[in-house]
Amino acid sequence: MPHPLRAAALAAALVLPALAEAQTSPQPAARPPVTLQDWGSFHVGGREVVISGQPVREVLFSPGGVPARVDPNGTYMMGGMYAQYMIPSPQRGSVPMLMWHGGGLTGVTWETTPDGRPGWQSFFLRQGWHTIVSDAVERGRAGWTMIPDQTGGQPVFLTLDNPWERFRIGEGPGSFQRGTTYPGVQFPTDRESYRNFVRQNVPRFTTTDELTLEAYLALLDRVGPSVVVAHSQAGLFGWRAAQERPDRVRALVLVEPAAVGDPAKVAALRNIPVLMIYGDNIATDPRWPTIRGNGVRFAEAVRAAGGSVDVVDLPERGIRGNSHMVMMDRNSDEVAQLVQDWLAARGLWR
Amino acid sequence: MPHPLRAAALAAALVLPALAEAQTSPQPAARPPVTLQDWGSFHVGGREVVISGQPVREVLFSPGGVPARVDPNGTYMMGGMYAQYMIPSPQRGSVPMLMWHGGGLTGVTWETTPDGRPGWQSFFLRQGWHTIVSDAVERGRAGWTMIPDQTGGQPVFLTLDNPWERFRIGEGPGSFQRGTTYPGVQFPTDRESYRNFVRQNVPRFTTTDELTLEAYLALLDRVGPSVVVAHSQAGLFGWRAAQERPDRVRALVLVEPAAVGDPAKVAALRNIPVLMIYGDNIATDPRWPTIRGNGVRFAEAVRAAGGSVDVVDLPERGIRGNSHMVMMDRNSDEVAQLVQDWLAARGLWR
Repeated sequence: MPHPLRAAALAAALVLPALAEAQTSPQPAARPPVTLQDWGSFHVGGREVVISGQPVREVLFSPGGVPARVDPNGTYMMGGMYAQYMIPSPQRGSVPMLMWHGGGLTGVTWETTPDGRPGWQSFFLRQGWHTIVSDAVERGRAGWTMIPDQTGGQPVFLTLDNPWERFRIGEGPGSFQRGTTYPGVQFPTDRESYRNFVRQNVPRFTTTDELTLEAYLALLDRVGPSVVVAHSQAGLFGWRAAQERPDRVRALVLVEPAAVGDPAKVAALRNIPVLMIYGDNIATDPRWPTIRGNGVRFAEAVRAAGGSVDVVDLPERGIRGNSHMVMMDRNSDEVAQLVQDWLAARGLWR
Repeated sequence: MPHPLRAAALAAALVLPALAEAQTSPQPAARPPVTLQDWGSFHVGGREVVISGQPVREVLFSPGGVPARVDPNGTYMMGGMYAQYMIPSPQRGSVPMLMWHGGGLTGVTWETTPDGRPGWQSFFLRQGWHTIVSDAVERGRAGWTMIPDQTGGQPVFLTLDNPWERFRIGEGPGSFQRGTTYPGVQFPTDRESYRNFVRQNVPRFTTTDELTLEAYLALLDRVGPSVVVAHSQAGLFGWRAAQERPDRVRALVLVEPAAVGDPAKVAALRNIPVLMIYGDNIATDPRWPTIRGNGVRFAEAVRAAGGSVDVVDLPERGIRGNSHMVMMDRNSDEVAQLVQDWLAARGLWR
């Protein structure tokens, strides 16, 4: 019997050549080349935390190596975040575009789709936007710490069926086991594509919202005026960061925002154009009618304070079948074009 | 008194504008633009693991949201890894270059240096290499799971002083507190640059070497023949992956490898040119004379089996002051050029 991991590796190798072809050896004719002025990454934000009273460990970092004494007591950096930038030439966006992922995910959300098509980062870079894709605090390349009083206890891990049933791919509980989906769902639901998406999931700390907001503010302070495109959980951070740094947020694009801003600070949003986008099959979902309702009510409060918020329900535009992961759905470019046109109409793209 | 996080965020904002200028608004004249044929990312490898007998949790994912029932029992994806590719036009490397980071770190190792200079990924992409930078299993965008029987218990977290004293930046224990370094050390040791590096640290699982090797094999199976550039812990994976897939590894560049391959399979390395690079101040380190000694002895065994291994001690080439993080040191481009010349001399670059 083959080693289970070997079997898994071979299975992955067997099912992936077509994707590998698409992703690592694209046909030159497939897409026009793009010129980059520069690209790179940096970490920003965070603070130092002192831990004491913990036992010293001896750790053998690599087999055949030499054990190293690791004293867990001391000063740690925590609460920083990671950002990767790509600057096209010529630039057509008037400011950088910050792309903020949702909970339990990383900046990978904006890269290649689970079925191997270019993601929204590629779409907007090709439109001439200086894109900055980040990994939020405690996620991905931001790194994480297990300091209970700072990050809570055990983070949340998702099983294979959870996103299928919670992100409106399948029609609620039991749909993953049944292998059923909403009619005409746009998310790529073939076995390999869905597992590619699940591979992107990372543990979710549910008690680090303040740390995360502070890091996003540090990012805005560093980058300067920007367009913020935020998904799901990051709707909270997009709204609140714009309220704390109204001079740094030129426009706010919220894709299926899961939470709202501070009701006491709606006036701060008065001069920031906001676009809220919702997908399909919300009415029949156990949670999304309430989540969308909260969002729409907050939008009304912002308007009442003199702000401008456009709420787009994609089905009302004739764009049907979108899941919670709009930027990964098969019609992701169609929705990205809607965002691009909205930004251009606001004078943010030349 | 200001909120401590706010204070930290402001402090970060105050010290970073110069770097921000260098990293997010480069002078057009600074570096020539680069044309990309394509870019993107994917996950590869891993397997499904079933968990049972755990209690169900109710989780409020976002404030003002709707609590969701999270049943931790079920099937998880684990052991996958993340890879990001950038394909320049024209391509001059004969095969892709896979860049494998060391322990407690991620692919960020190869991107921008902690003091804001282009990293090795930039250097080799500009030379015309199709680069693929990965995050190993349980690190960064690969995601991680806390399944004790699969990933061991608590991973290792590093304090601020640990890399300073273990990566030959300062001269051993106490040097961080003293604020002293090896004479002429090339690592950027100003306060902000060093903390930028520490921000890149991620928790290290010390019991997932087999999972990690399997994922690297899946990566090689997917990408095909490649040059592998591996640092520190990844020396183990570079050697062992080349032994398991000798037809997929055209050359192996090991930067301060922390471990060796399988002594029983040295013959498999017979046709793969190998370059091993070591930095400065090894003789006076408590651990590195042994680690380097193991590496050199393994190289001799590979040569005895008919293989070709070049061991380069940088000080003997007149290149002094390099820490364990050679690709981040101030002379990182000089060492990258040494690697580039070595690869070109082996007919792998046109």
